[in-house]
This record gives sequence, C-alpha cells and structure tokens, in this order.
Amino acid sequence: MGATGYTGAETLRILLAHPEVDLAVVTSRTEQGRRVADFFPWLRGHTDLCYSAPDDPALARCDVVFFATPNGTAMEQAPALVRAGVRVIDLSADFRLADAAEWARWYGREHACPDLLPEAVYGLPEQNRGRIRAARIVANPGCYPTAVILALLPLLAEGADVAGDFIADAKSGVSGAGRKVEAGYLFSEVTDSFRAYAVSGHRHQPEIRQALGRAAGGPVELTFVPHLVPMVRGIHATVYARLHDDGRDLQALYERYYGEEPFVDVLPPGSHPETRSVRGTNFCRVALHRPAPHRLVVLSVIDNLVKGAAGQAVQNMNIMFGLDETLGLTASALAP
Amino acid sequence: MGATGYTGAETLRILLAHPEVDLAVVTSRTEQGRRVADFFPWLRGHTDLCYSAPDDPALARCDVVFFATPNGTAMEQAPALVRAGVRVIDLSADFRLADAAEWARWYGREHACPDLLPEAVYGLPEQNRGRIRAARIVANPGCYPTAVILALLPLLAEGADVAGDFIADAKSGVSGAGRKVEAGYLFSEVTDSFRAYAVSGHRHQPEIRQALGRAAGGPVELTFVPHLVPMVRGIHATVYARLHDDGRDLQALYERYYGEEPFVDVLPPGSHPETRSVRGTNFCRVALHRPAPHRLVVLSVIDNLVKGAAGQAVQNMNIMFGLDETLGLTASALAP
Amino acid sequence: MGATGYTGAETLRILLAHPEVDLAVVTSRTEQGRRVADFFPWLRGHTDLCYSAPDDPALARCDVVFFATPNGTAMEQAPALVRAGVRVIDLSADFRLADAAEWARWYGREHACPDLLPEAVYGLPEQNRGRIRAARIVANPGCYPTAVILALLPLLAEGADVAGDFIADAKSGVSGAGRKVEAGYLFSEVTDSFRAYAVSGHRHQPEIRQALGRAAGGPVELTFVPHLVPMVRGIHATVYARLHDDGRDLQALYERYYGEEPFVDVLPPGSHPETRSVRGTNFCRVALHRPAPHRLVVLSVIDNLVKGAAGQAVQNMNIMFGLDETLGLTASALAP
Amino acid sequence: MGATGYTGAETLRILLAHPEVDLAVVTSRTEQGRRVADFFPWLRGHTDLCYSAPDDPALARCDVVFFATPNGTAMEQAPALVRAGVRVIDLSADFRLADAAEWARWYGREHACPDLLPEAVYGLPEQNRGRIRAARIVANPGCYPTAVILALLPLLAEGADVAGDFIADAKSGVSGAGRKVEAGYLFSEVTDSFRAYAVSGHRHQPEIRQALGRAAGGPVELTFVPHLVPMVRGIHATVYARLHDDGRDLQALYERYYGEEPFVDVLPPGSHPETRSVRGTNFCRVALHRPAPHRLVVLSVIDNLVKGAAGQAVQNMNIMFGLDETLGLTASALAP
Repeated sequence: MGATGYTGAETLRILLAHPEVDLAVVTSRTEQGRRVADFFPWLRGHTDLCYSAPDDPALARCDVVFFATPNGTAMEQAPALVRAGVRVIDLSADFRLADAAEWARWYGREHACPDLLPEAVYGLPEQNRGRIRAARIVANPGCYPTAVILALLPLLAEGADVAGDFIADAKSGVSGAGRKVEAGYLFSEVTDSFRAYAVSGHRHQPEIRQALGRAAGGPVELTFVPHLVPMVRGIHATVYARLHDDGRDLQALYERYYGEEPFVDVLPPGSHPETRSVRGTNFCRVALHRPAPHRLVVLSVIDNLVKGAAGQAVQNMNIMFGLDETLGLTASALAP
Repeated sequence: MGATGYTGAETLRILLAHPEVDLAVVTSRTEQGRRVADFFPWLRGHTDLCYSAPDDPALARCDVVFFATPNGTAMEQAPALVRAGVRVIDLSADFRLADAAEWARWYGREHACPDLLPEAVYGLPEQNRGRIRAARIVANPGCYPTAVILALLPLLAEGADVAGDFIADAKSGVSGAGRKVEAGYLFSEVTDSFRAYAVSGHRHQPEIRQALGRAAGGPVELTFVPHLVPMVRGIHATVYARLHDDGRDLQALYERYYGEEPFVDVLPPGSHPETRSVRGTNFCRVALHRPAPHRLVVLSVIDNLVKGAAGQAVQNMNIMFGLDETLGLTASALAP
Repeated sequence: MGATGYTGAETLRILLAHPEVDLAVVTSRTEQGRRVADFFPWLRGHTDLCYSAPDDPALARCDVVFFATPNGTAMEQAPALVRAGVRVIDLSADFRLADAAEWARWYGREHACPDLLPEAVYGLPEQNRGRIRAARIVANPGCYPTAVILALLPLLAEGADVAGDFIADAKSGVSGAGRKVEAGYLFSEVTDSFRAYAVSGHRHQPEIRQALGRAAGGPVELTFVPHLVPMVRGIHATVYARLHDDGRDLQALYERYYGEEPFVDVLPPGSHPETRSVRGTNFCRVALHRPAPHRLVVLSVIDNLVKGAAGQAVQNMNIMFGLDETLGLTASALAP
Repeated sequence: MGATGYTGAETLRILLAHPEVDLAVVTSRTEQGRRVADFFPWLRGHTDLCYSAPDDPALARCDVVFFATPNGTAMEQAPALVRAGVRVIDLSADFRLADAAEWARWYGREHACPDLLPEAVYGLPEQNRGRIRAARIVANPGCYPTAVILALLPLLAEGADVAGDFIADAKSGVSGAGRKVEAGYLFSEVTDSFRAYAVSGHRHQPEIRQALGRAAGGPVELTFVPHLVPMVRGIHATVYARLHDDGRDLQALYERYYGEEPFVDVLPPGSHPETRSVRGTNFCRVALHRPAPHRLVVLSVIDNLVKGAAGQAVQNMNIMFGLDETLGLTASALAP
C-alpha cells in the first residue's frame, strides 16, 4: 500500500528479490494504472506490475500487506484487512505508540482504531521477536528509534547502573524525510551544509522512550536531537549515558547480548562505524567508547531505509511466517 | 589477485553472493595476513578470508583467477597460471589492446607476453560472447569503453551511414580513479566541482577505437573527452554521431539489436537515463535522440565498478563456465 | 524585482557589497512585508530591507531595476519603467531573442512588447560592450549561453576556418534550475547521479545560435546538450569544433582576443579548468585542446549564478553607469 | 608561513582582499619558487607572488607573520621573529595550551619554547579582546574550540547554575582535516557517509576545557565527540548542558552578552542555524533550545576555515593593529 515514496520503493526492491515472496499488488492513490518501473526507472527489468487502487480487492487475498503510506492511512485501512485475516506490517507511525492519547498529542488527530493498539506489536525483533511471530499487526519502528534503541537495549535490559538522563544526538541522511517535495529538501538547499531540526520536540522521542522504558522496567529520561546530513541513506546515532562506574565490562555485555542476533554487529573496542558500511543492508553496527569512567558513548549506524524501515519490515515478515529471518536480507553493503 | 582497490572490493562483493562460486583465495601484496573484512569493514559478516601472498600456490588450483591489479601485473603473472590450466579474467588493461606496440605506446613499457595477446578475448559479451566462452584469457573492458562501445555497437554493426567522426563526451564518478591516494581525489578537491581531464589523450581512446573498428569493419575516428563528476559510481557517455539521413529507424534498430541482451536496456524515445538507475547493477541503459536530421545523440549509462569492471568480469565468468549469464548479477539498483 | 530565487539572492549579495549601489527596493509577489534576511538567513546582518510589492512606486525613482523574475514578467513590467526613465537589466529570458516569433515558439506565448526587442541589447560585455553602455534595456544572457559563447567567440569573430557544426556538451550545477520546488531537484533524486536533459531541444540553443551567428556573420549550426551535475554552482561547457587545419595558433588568438577582458581568463595550454576555480566569481576560464589536427576542444567554466546571471548583470550595470567595470566583482573564488 | 594547506589558502584569500594589508612574503617548504596562483588556480588574477623559503629574511621586516604550518613548526620559528619585533599569529596548535606538560602529552613531543607560553594570548576575541590588542604572540583557536566555546561562554561567564558535565557533539566538514593526502579523506571514502572519530580523546578537548575553565573560574567537565560530515566547510556543534532550573532567561542573557560582538549572531528562539549560512564568513551563529526544564541545547555554527581559522586570525590582526575589527571580513555567506 502506497509505494511511491522511498520506503515503498525500498520495500519493493527487497520483496522483488525475496525467494519466498510473490508480489501480488502494489497500490498508489496518485499513480493508479502506471507501470511501477516507469515511476521508479531503476526497477526496469525487475517488475511489470502496475499500480492499482488502494481499495483493490486483491489485497484481501494476500497473506500480508505492507503499509508504506503517510501517517494516518494505515489506521483507517488496516482494521478491515485484519478482520479479513490479512496480517499487516505498518511502516508508518500509526501503531507505534501504545497510548492513543499520546499518539493524538504527537500526530495531531485522534487515533482511528485505538482498540487495535493493544495487540499491535512493536516490530523490533531484537526486543520483541516472540510477540512478532504471532502478531496480526506489526508496528514497524521508526528509523531513529531503531538506531537509538539498539544502542541502549543491552544496557537497560541488563540493568546497568545508569546515573542520569540519556542524550541521543542523531544524524540522518535526507531520504529520511521521504520523497516530500518541499523547498527545504532541494539539492541546493541541503548539500554541503548541516543543521539540526526539531530540537524542541520530535515524534520519535516518545517512541524511543516507550521502548527504552519497557527495557528498563520504568520511565527513562531522554534528550533527542535529530540532524540532517547531506547524504542519501544512513543514520548515525551518538548516544550518551552517564553511569555509576561499577566496573562492568560493557563491551562483553553487548557482545553477549547481541551474540545470536543476525543483524546487529558489535564492533571491536575503539571502532567508529561508518553509515556507508550498512548502506543497502539490514545491519546495525554498534561501537562502545568510554572516554571517562562515568561516561559511555555508544555509536550506532543503520540504513534508515532498510533496518530503519523496509528491511526491518521484511525481517518481521520472515519471523511472522516462520521463514529464515535473514531471507532476502543477506546482501552486503554497496560501498564505496 | 589484488583485492584492495575498488574493483577488487566490488569483485569480492559480487562473488561472495554468487551461488556457484567458492571463493578460495584473495591476494594482496601489501595486506597479507590481514582479514579482508578488517580492510573493508562493509564486508564484516560476509567473509572470514584473509589476504594471502600474490604467489599463493592455491591460485593454481582455482578454476578461474580474477586480476584486479594495477596495469602491468597481470601480464607478468597470468602466463604461468594459464599454463597451469587456470583461466584468467584480467580487469586491468594488460590484454585489452591487440597490438603490443600500441600497448607499449600508451602504457609506457614493453608488453611482457605479446605472444598471449592474439588469444586474449576482449570481454564485451555483447560483441564477443562466442569467443569468450572458450577463452583462456579474457581482457575485461575498461569502464569508459564499455559505456561508449555499447552506445555505438548497433549503429556500426548494422552499417549505418555515418558521415563523420564520433565524439564521446564521457563523465565518470570518482571511483573510476580507483582508491589512489592522490591530492586530486580528496573529498575537498573533488566535491561541488566539475572538470575535464586528459583531453589531449586518454588510454581508453585506442581501446574504444579498436572495438568500434572491429564492429565497423574498418578504422573509426573518435574524439574522446573524459570528465570527473562529484559522485562515487557511474559513467554517463554522451556520444555524438553525424549521419547521412537515410530514414532508418534507429530506435527500432537498437531495440532489435539488443533485444536478447540481458544487461542492455534500450529506453523509450525521449528518455534521459540517470547513472543512479544502474548503481550497483550490471545494466547498461541506452537512449537515442535525434535533435537534427543528421545528428544522432546516444546517451549511455553504466556503473563503472559493475558493468564497467567487476560485474562484467563475473558475466564473462558465467559465460566461460556455461552458467546462466545473469547468475549473481540480478540485483536491482540501489536508489535513491 | 523578484528576489526570492537564487538569481535574485545572488544579485542581492553582490549589490549589498557594491560600493556605489544604494539598494532601495526589493520586491516579491509572495513574500511582501517579510524581512529579506528572514527569507535568506545567510543575509542576516547585511540588510534590514523587507520585500515590497511588485508595483512599489519607489521603483520608478530608481536609476536601474534588475528583473530576477520568472520568464514573462519583465516583458509586462519593463515598458512602464523604461518610459519613466528607469534603465532595466532583465535576468530572465524575455528580451534575449531578437525575433518575437522565435521567442513565442520557444517560450510558448506571444511576446508582450515586441516593439522593445530591437533596442534591447544582449548583455554580453565581451561581445556588445559599446551598445550596453547606452542601453535602456539589457537582456542579461543565459548561463549556458555565456559559457558556450565565450568558448567560441574569438574563433568566430576572427574568422577561423570552421568545417562543420559545433557541439556544446554542457554541464550545470543544480542551482541552474533555480529554487523550483519539484521532485526532480530533491537532494535524494539528484545527488550521486548524473543525467542529460532536454536533449531534443533547450531554450538556450536559439540564444547561443543567435549570438554565434552575429559573431560569424552568418548562420551557425549547433548541437547543444545540457546535463545536470550533482553540485550547486558551476557550468562546464565542453565545446567541439571541426576545423580545416590552417595552421593558425588558436591559443595565441584567444589570448590576444581576451587580453583586455577583465573577466575572461585564457588558461595555459594543457589546462583543465575546474568549476570551483570560479565559484562565487564573475570569471570565465577557458582552455583549448587540439587532440587531432582538425579537432578543437574548448573547455569553458563559469559560476552560473555570477558570470551566468547576477555578476554579469552587475558588470552590465557598471558599464551602463560609467563605473569601473569590475566594481563589486573582484572577490576571488571560494575554494575549497 | 606555510601556505599550501587550506588554512593557508584561506588566509591568502582574505588578506589579498584586505584594504590595509600589503602581502609581502608567502613561504612554503615544498613549493619554493612556484607561483602561488599555479598551486591554487582559483587565485589566478589575484596575486603574482611566488612561494619563498621558510627562512626568507623578508619575514623579519614584516609587521606580522601568520603561521599556517603543521603543529611543531611555529614553536621553532616564532621565537626569533618575536625577538626581531615581528608579531606572530599562529594558526597551528603550538601556543594554545598554557601548560607545556599537557601540550607534550597531547602532541607527543616536548614544547620547544615553554618560556613563551605564558605570554601567548588565546586569540578568541569574544573572550580575550583586551589581551589580544597588546599580544606579541596570538594562539589562534582551533576550529572545534571556537564553535564550542562560543556556545557556552555567556552561560559560564554569567554564572549559570550548571548541574553536570557538558557534552559537545560536534560535526565538521572535511576541510577540517586540511589537505592531508590520506585514503580516509578520498572523495569515494567520505561522501554519502557519516562517522564519528577520536571518540576516546581529541586534542581539541583540553583546549576547550582550558577556555571554559577560565570563563567559569574553575575546572569544567566535558565530553567532546567529533564527527566527519560529507561537506567541505562548516562546523556544527550541538552542546548539551544540564542546568538547575533557576528561571533565568538564557535567550536574553545570550543576546545581551553578545550584543556588541560583530561576529556572533544569536538567532531568535526556535532557530536551527545551517552551516551554509556562515560559509565563507567570519560569523558564528548560535541558537538556544530548552527541550526540558533542566536541559539546555545550544546549536553553534561556524565556517571552520574562517571563524575557525583564517578569518579569526585576521580579526585578531585587526585588533592587534588598531584597525576596524571587521575590516576585510564583511562579505556575506556564499549560499546556496
């Protein structure tokens, strides 16, 4: 549903190469009837599908439907599909916050199906793999939340002795803004420059706090500042924690915690991951630094369109349908 | 052989994901003993191989050896391998020119094995598929030549009525210079700028003329001007031909000529291919324009590291070993 | 008039630092009342002006008015100003083509004041300095035309023995498209990619042909192909001429022809000018190559927003008002 | 002294346009005898000077000598110049740390003239204007320190009630690494990617702590993490402070503190400065955010080569010689 943005395009790219997927329907409100490969010329030779209408009845015959629609659409259309027995993976924000009131506060309207919120599962496999398996609705995490939560999950889940609030200074490539046609995202406005945005409040902040709070077993304080980097793909989160220095070996803790995870790579001590090292892949690479005894700095990189969106959605699909979790997601990064 | 440059890295990336390849040895003169994934961090999780010495005896037990070495190395080392029954695909320039004297003129030294030049096959499948199948030595084409030759091949092979010399105004991403550590390729020297280089003579000019001459059945005049684009991957060749207007439908001619080619995509009339539409892929996309009756402009784009190097090498390998020609090369472009 | 695009912003930047200019009025249809420095934050501290309406009566009291409006506006508003004794420099295309019918063909509507076309002077000082001095209306040249014409002017004006049509393969930074909010100019669509556009016909082609024809004293054939480079500023024209080799020293001819020009720099033989070497300046740098006896290649670079627009407009103003032609235009390039 | 790097080139650019400067000597160890405009082609037409030797006796006849040399050179050569009555502005790090032992620890060798350290003045006009006026040796601040210190100076100098350590998450364009020819700074390695570096310790950290400590009147704790942005110029510092919420209006405090400063621009509440808004200028733009009552986030942007190096050096020169402090530094930003 809604495959004319970057998240939709990326979902198509991955699904078209997935050995167990038969892509049946691609919808678009604005491009109905047009060949997908005319809209995204880089898909020429990979699909002959045309966009169909958002109410295409063929959707109800699918095993799973991905929503890559703007916020507010999935909550309108998912309920009927779920009732028809179709499982839903929503890449928008509609099912990410458990609290309908908080959702309304951040997204500026009432939630259309608050009754479904309790059963929607936050689709971060590293935190919720078991519940994803059985979910009817998976709320695919935001890109920033994926990078930040994976940077802190072991620390909180293992009960490290945190002595203050967290700071997540996050930097994103421009594709994170989607294919929105606004002056602020024009090439000549963005390139060769750098800036922060939404410092006073960003919708991903409550999403991150919710996941970290669940891991910590209680509320977590967090300052979250996003920045725009003149590059296409990639998020780099620099996460600061203040710890009581209890002598624990956090490097070992992280390596152990993520030891079996197929898509989280804990780098050796002293490392500085580059976003390009995960470009086009579903990997998150994490590195720990301890510049002062009480100070932990975690560096975390993902591709915002893959592990931060389409790739994680397919990882969730693999889990939901009992497939090998890495199926269709094993390509190495495209670098340089 | 020699997998510390971009061409080598790209060959590794493709071979590691190729279902019929078992990568046995990766050599480097300078990085012997080091883990490949330490040198190219984006390959972490995809290989545990370490670089071995260029004279590793295991090479002689391989079915095929790829040379991604600087010019001048393959001509020294290939002969022994060929004698040992190993087939060779050389991504450097050592076997591209049939005439040893011309090679010496452009590359500034004597050729080390002129006796092998006659049997080396120029590895452009669209021109020489049959001979590649049986070749012991394949000279993998240069990046510019691939883009330019594919732009003109149908025209010359089908005997169009050309009325003058050709002009190939070609633009390449910076990865075309390899991983050479020179001031001129520093980020701050290259980005947000554009320039031509080697206007008075570039080594790819005789290579292009040789292939075009074979297609035309006689000598071909060509002005070739390369430019440096502030991007990583991609070549865009704008090729100008002056024709006697004989009324032939060149669009149809090109579509027919390339109709069965798995990696050449003739775009609809009026198209302007973008280099990113082939980023990371083995595709060449071609578009024809006729701004005046006597004037043909052909636009041709490839990824210089894939169809212009590593991907074409693997395509050649597939042909040489009787595999499906597209094996390991079916990924769609990474865009945006 | 119309200072919310890049051309307008650049005109402001130069005029605000010009020692003989008192900037009286800045208009905008859409931003009336807003502080200019709020719209362009990089001008904070340099002006307190607010945008006023396009019909601000203060305009009629100015010595000169610059139009940086979309095509079609100046031809509506300039006549009244000219009648009021205000001199006009039009950075749009309204007065560039002498033939109203040809203008209508390329710009898709009738010209609003064809009677004024005969007196409008094409504002390329290197060609028309004398007439600019006395002009009431100066048609400031397009960016591509400036780069291409300066590449060929000495050749044609000095009667070189040309043996065929010209090819201008031109490459422009993205600011050449202005501040147009279209999907095709989004950062993620443009960066790390390269493409041609309008190969079948671009409005700057007749403008170039007109100027070259005047220099040659007769019609000139030209194929013009523009390309989009992932950079902000800069045009690089690679211009191909076929000559009868009459033994003339063209390097000397160019150096002599441009010897007194303050803004055209003929580089030493063998040079390859970079666009960044003119970034932010009013310079055009030109280099000649002769890869074959009959073949001339001229490389020409300008900053499309300066010598290709705002800087040339100010150069014209200096000429029109008897000022030192370089006043306000002497800054060196901002590089790297 | 030493004008072959970016800092030197930028100092030349500014001095060549400075109305009160007569540029007498430009030295280079490696490029002696070569025309400066051949080395930096973008200076063609602006200077005919040739590089002379580092021991050129003409240096001793200058009023002031700028060192744009690698660390370790100025401390060897400055003492003799100072004894000869020449004032010195050192853009390298040799005189920035007051404590010779700390200098030795961070720069890996003994300081060559520890006796001169006490009189060297840290050249941040906003902090030390009075002492700069009379200084014989000015230690021009590092680029990161300039951005970070200016973000915190009013807070500390005015005794705000700070409740914890500071975090400076800083991002720099690639020109900050100078013109160092290393693989890590190649275009294809840097572009379209983002990474942190030196997280465990960077030489600018003690420099920042020293200045902040002086402002606060006591030691200050600071975590400093630099990052590399795929752009040429610009530093963006995101500085985090934890405050006891005492109700002070920090926006007003900053506006008052910097009210008379010609080069520090405190933006309106809610602003997000872009690095391009200061490109090529000596401005620092600062914005304050208060996402939570106890949390202050200060955004601070400079051009690392201007306010972070050459521009600040010229500002210091203007102060030292009783000139208008803004002379030669009034250009507005080059944007887009």
